[in-house]
Amino acid sequence: MVISELKSDTVGTDMYNFMAKLYPICRSITGNGVRETLRKIQELIPIKIHEVPSEMKVFDWTVPKEWNIRDAYIKNTHGERIIDFKNSNLHVVGYSMPVKTKMVLKELREYLFTIPEYPDWIPYRTSYYKETWGFCLTHKQFLELHDEEYEICIDSTLENGHLTYGEYYLEGESTEEVLISSHICHPSLCNDNLSGVALSTFLAKHLASRSRRYSFRFLFVPGTIGSIAWLAANEDSARNIKHGVVVTGVGDPGPFTYKKSRQGDVEIDRAFGHVLKHSQQEFKIIDFFPYGYDERQYCSPAFNLPVGCFMRSSHGEYPEYHTSGDNLDFVQPQYLKESFSHCLKTLTLLERNKVFLNQNPHCEPQLGRRGLYRAIGGQAEGAKREMAMLWVLNLSDGHHTLLGIAERSNIPFDVVYEAAEVLLDHGLLKEVNA
Amino acid sequence: MVISELKSDTVGTDMYNFMAKLYPICRSITGNGVRETLRKIQELIPIKIHEVPSEMKVFDWTVPKEWNIRDAYIKNTHGERIIDFKNSNLHVVGYSMPVKTKMVLKELREYLFTIPEYPDWIPYRTSYYKETWGFCLTHKQFLELHDEEYEICIDSTLENGHLTYGEYYLEGESTEEVLISSHICHPSLCNDNLSGVALSTFLAKHLASRSRRYSFRFLFVPGTIGSIAWLAANEDSARNIKHGVVVTGVGDPGPFTYKKSRQGDVEIDRAFGHVLKHSQQEFKIIDFFPYGYDERQYCSPAFNLPVGCFMRSSHGEYPEYHTSGDNLDFVQPQYLKESFSHCLKTLTLLERNKVFLNQNPHCEPQLGRRGLYRAIGGQAEGAKREMAMLWVLNLSDGHHTLLGIAERSNIPFDVVYEAAEVLLDHGLLKEVNA
Amino acid sequence: MVISELKSDTVGTDMYNFMAKLYPICRSITGNGVRETLRKIQELIPIKIHEVPSEMKVFDWTVPKEWNIRDAYIKNTHGERIIDFKNSNLHVVGYSMPVKTKMVLKELREYLFTIPEYPDWIPYRTSYYKETWGFCLTHKQFLELHDEEYEICIDSTLENGHLTYGEYYLEGESTEEVLISSHICHPSLCNDNLSGVALSTFLAKHLASRSRRYSFRFLFVPGTIGSIAWLAANEDSARNIKHGVVVTGVGDPGPFTYKKSRQGDVEIDRAFGHVLKHSQQEFKIIDFFPYGYDERQYCSPAFNLPVGCFMRSSHGEYPEYHTSGDNLDFVQPQYLKESFSHCLKTLTLLERNKVFLNQNPHCEPQLGRRGLYRAIGGQAEGAKREMAMLWVLNLSDGHHTLLGIAERSNIPFDVVYEAAEVLLDHGLLKEVNA
Repeated sequence: MVISELKSDTVGTDMYNFMAKLYPICRSITGNGVRETLRKIQELIPIKIHEVPSEMKVFDWTVPKEWNIRDAYIKNTHGERIIDFKNSNLHVVGYSMPVKTKMVLKELREYLFTIPEYPDWIPYRTSYYKETWGFCLTHKQFLELHDEEYEICIDSTLENGHLTYGEYYLEGESTEEVLISSHICHPSLCNDNLSGVALSTFLAKHLASRSRRYSFRFLFVPGTIGSIAWLAANEDSARNIKHGVVVTGVGDPGPFTYKKSRQGDVEIDRAFGHVLKHSQQEFKIIDFFPYGYDERQYCSPAFNLPVGCFMRSSHGEYPEYHTSGDNLDFVQPQYLKESFSHCLKTLTLLERNKVFLNQNPHCEPQLGRRGLYRAIGGQAEGAKREMAMLWVLNLSDGHHTLLGIAERSNIPFDVVYEAAEVLLDHGLLKEVNA
Repeated sequence: MVISELKSDTVGTDMYNFMAKLYPICRSITGNGVRETLRKIQELIPIKIHEVPSEMKVFDWTVPKEWNIRDAYIKNTHGERIIDFKNSNLHVVGYSMPVKTKMVLKELREYLFTIPEYPDWIPYRTSYYKETWGFCLTHKQFLELHDEEYEICIDSTLENGHLTYGEYYLEGESTEEVLISSHICHPSLCNDNLSGVALSTFLAKHLASRSRRYSFRFLFVPGTIGSIAWLAANEDSARNIKHGVVVTGVGDPGPFTYKKSRQGDVEIDRAFGHVLKHSQQEFKIIDFFPYGYDERQYCSPAFNLPVGCFMRSSHGEYPEYHTSGDNLDFVQPQYLKESFSHCLKTLTLLERNKVFLNQNPHCEPQLGRRGLYRAIGGQAEGAKREMAMLWVLNLSDGHHTLLGIAERSNIPFDVVYEAAEVLLDHGLLKEVNA
Repeated sequence: MVISELKSDTVGTDMYNFMAKLYPICRSITGNGVRETLRKIQELIPIKIHEVPSEMKVFDWTVPKEWNIRDAYIKNTHGERIIDFKNSNLHVVGYSMPVKTKMVLKELREYLFTIPEYPDWIPYRTSYYKETWGFCLTHKQFLELHDEEYEICIDSTLENGHLTYGEYYLEGESTEEVLISSHICHPSLCNDNLSGVALSTFLAKHLASRSRRYSFRFLFVPGTIGSIAWLAANEDSARNIKHGVVVTGVGDPGPFTYKKSRQGDVEIDRAFGHVLKHSQQEFKIIDFFPYGYDERQYCSPAFNLPVGCFMRSSHGEYPEYHTSGDNLDFVQPQYLKESFSHCLKTLTLLERNKVFLNQNPHCEPQLGRRGLYRAIGGQAEGAKREMAMLWVLNLSDGHHTLLGIAERSNIPFDVVYEAAEVLLDHGLLKEVNA
């Protein structure tokens, strides 16, 4: 039952460095950028790469054409690339169809997107399901455009191909699964969602090295269409998901946010709530709403899976969101590490959250003769352990998990768990087989 | 399914003018004043008038004798009518037996009632079940009485006759009913309860003109004995009442008050709560208590009907209550109109509060290809509609009414309803047959 | 159904005087001090004294040897008793084994216990399950010790014998029981727990004199091992306990504390909560935790009895706790009397907390013709009674106890009870046979 705790002090930096490697790649919901990203993940964990053909029906949706892009620019009359995809892949609206034309500023304007409030940032835009094209640029760049004719080039392809996603299944003692899902479809944006991809990857790497009660399934999927494709392919086996979490936006300096599952108060919700409550860090727990990330799909009514979403700053609530401001300066190793630690603590809690039966349920067992009671006097630490033991004994009636005991006693789960271990060792508890 | 919204801007004034017509009539729990009032209502809606004979047993009660009054006065030694029923029907204690006598002030005093705190107002008093008589006068009038002999006359009759009430049944698609009840037994008092009578009448007039899912039953009854007589006569069919509200005191300037049904959190309670919460006006929701108006009878334990009470200022909590201060200056068209509007909104909500089944419950349906998703960018209004559609889809699992969805999402019912209509039109929802 | 209320104004003084008689006796979890105490209780109520032999197994525990002590002292080289058991029985660590030796201060020091923060108080220490010995003294006494050789004597015996407890069973109409338990194992300490012993005794004396719906069981037991021994001997019949309370620390000036049973919201919890809420005195209701007094045993998972704990200042939260400061000055008759009164009110409430059926459940019965309604006008007192009657009628549907009605209406139980009595007298209610 012993599960080794994370020892590594370098996990934050390791995650950050991994994100730095993935940052330049131009990803979208399909295409080679996703494949390249998944191959880099494979260098750390042996994920399986799935290819779903374009035009396949997945529930109400159809897998779109595959989009790839080699180059794109706007050249002025001097032949200078004043907007250049090679500088930032955010410059091109995602899924832009190929274009090779000339336009005067007046015509071009409707294909250009900026953020006047943040004149140094390039916005991030896509148009997956409506064929169009466009360029994103800083508002400063936009203001420097003149009333001249520009040469426009988007050297992209939009053809039948595949949608690609990665999956890593770690078998445990039970076929019941914990799902960790992160979206992998954003180009050079760090918090959203290279941070989630990195956290999932390093979590998987860590969990692979230890014994597991639950099986763990890691999904690296394009947002929306990717999780829908996975659910369509795994409609029945998705029922094995006992707990799940979508991980995104976990590298910024904001306070932690846990968004509950649609069901609202299931074990994963309570587990994240407990870990955050005892984390000594700022956090908020928010109710489910059918918007945000792939929890929208996992929590659709026919699935209604117990899947929440773990973030730092909430989706869309920071100005860098979906702009070039969401870069390698915005995320930091220490924030990534804290997020990793809370996720790992929560998953460890789920692994350890068993139900026990007090073997001496009539009155208290005599802890003293077993050396489990403080001698005369006693320090605060001992008193805390003693109280935890008394709570575990009192509530181990077959109806309370250790988390339930931690919640009712307002004692951190770890202390309750250690008390249960001691009592188990002394034969005072027995695990209830589920 | 489309239900036309109230267009009339004049409903407040219409109600007020109708009250002004009813104001001079001397009503009580029986007698010609009630009949005359009901006939005036008949000029607007085709209510049926019921006559219940005196001495009939209605549950634990007996229908009292019928009371009528032609004249009443106190004359001084100069033969001047110093208190005159013709000036205000409040001057006579309701149900006063006939009197023709002379008394010196000392004797007369115990038959006189005033309000020293409000020396300009005549109090309203009755004595239905104990035969006596009395006069109500302003405290100023009282102070002007001298130690002389007065001539007392109450030209009333108290004889076997009938108790009269009005009923209007509007058939709907379902035999399940919505009850709207108002008491009609008070003489020249406006807020209590010509305001409730007028609101019920105009609500009935409005509902008669539109298609209805529920049947609606409007009762215009003398307080207590009238609702008891109706329940005694309709003991079985009262079970058809699915939702109900007692309407009273809806013309004063006070904030809105909704008193919940005895059951406490039934659909009518939630509906009024929701409408008031989103009304941008001051209001309070109070728990049921077995005092107040006819909800006492509808919510007696053997009936326990889902009937609440809608008011502005609470029963007895304004100084004008049960005095001549509750007159045509105290109530105003704008307050009446607001009350009408909240009631109509609530009843419309009940009519529209259905349960739907998402026809694509596996993941979200693709709203974009149906033109239901904002294009690139998008305004706040569009975002709100989109969220409402996502909520309706997510919770239309057969277990949530539209009101349940509005409550959980904290979105006004109207927005949720419109979203459901759009989804229905696109075949994404189907109504659940109850 | 009439139960006479406490008339005695002297109960606080009576309890105090009884405590003064018990104060000098040296009690422990076994031994003649307990027997002598129980005999003094027998002078007031006819309790039965039980003797449980040493070495008997009681669930996970073993009844310990019996401890008795005649004398104990520390003498200096002049032969003066500088610490003398005859001055205070707190001077000897409870269950100290016999000792007759000489020691220099350096050796002796580890057998001495003081409270440096309160240099005038002797601490209270025991060592029941580990054979050792020791002296408790004031810190002032400790500072006066010199580096000389002391003569140590503890003239105690620790031999097979018995554990002694007292039990008083008052038969009522029903075999369902109310348990009142107090621990009797502390030597010269007043609040903890001669106060509880005295309150139980006088409560028993009072209840013996009146008719009883429930049976009442009073236990005077050594803490922990005593309640365990009782539960072991009464494993099956303990199921008769419908309500229970551990009484301790009820003579100090602190605000009232009621600690709920493990089940959390059972009738005894609600009853104490209601009485304290309407007491106009400061109080707090705390949740169950598996520490404190014998509720730990009664609420162990296999019993899970509805037993709470009634105190003034909470266990361990006042400096005098477990010191010689917990003496006859610390407790006062007025505090004892208030505690007695709240306990008696709560037990009386339980006795009276029945379920009735409104005999006229269709609409309100006509209270007026029965003289139960105020005439014209009416005072506040009458209005309160009237409201209580209307509440009782409205909620007497077979599903609400009188306490449930008092809670929902926020009317003190006594007023609700009196209203029910009046309605019963008029045939408007009928008791529901459980």
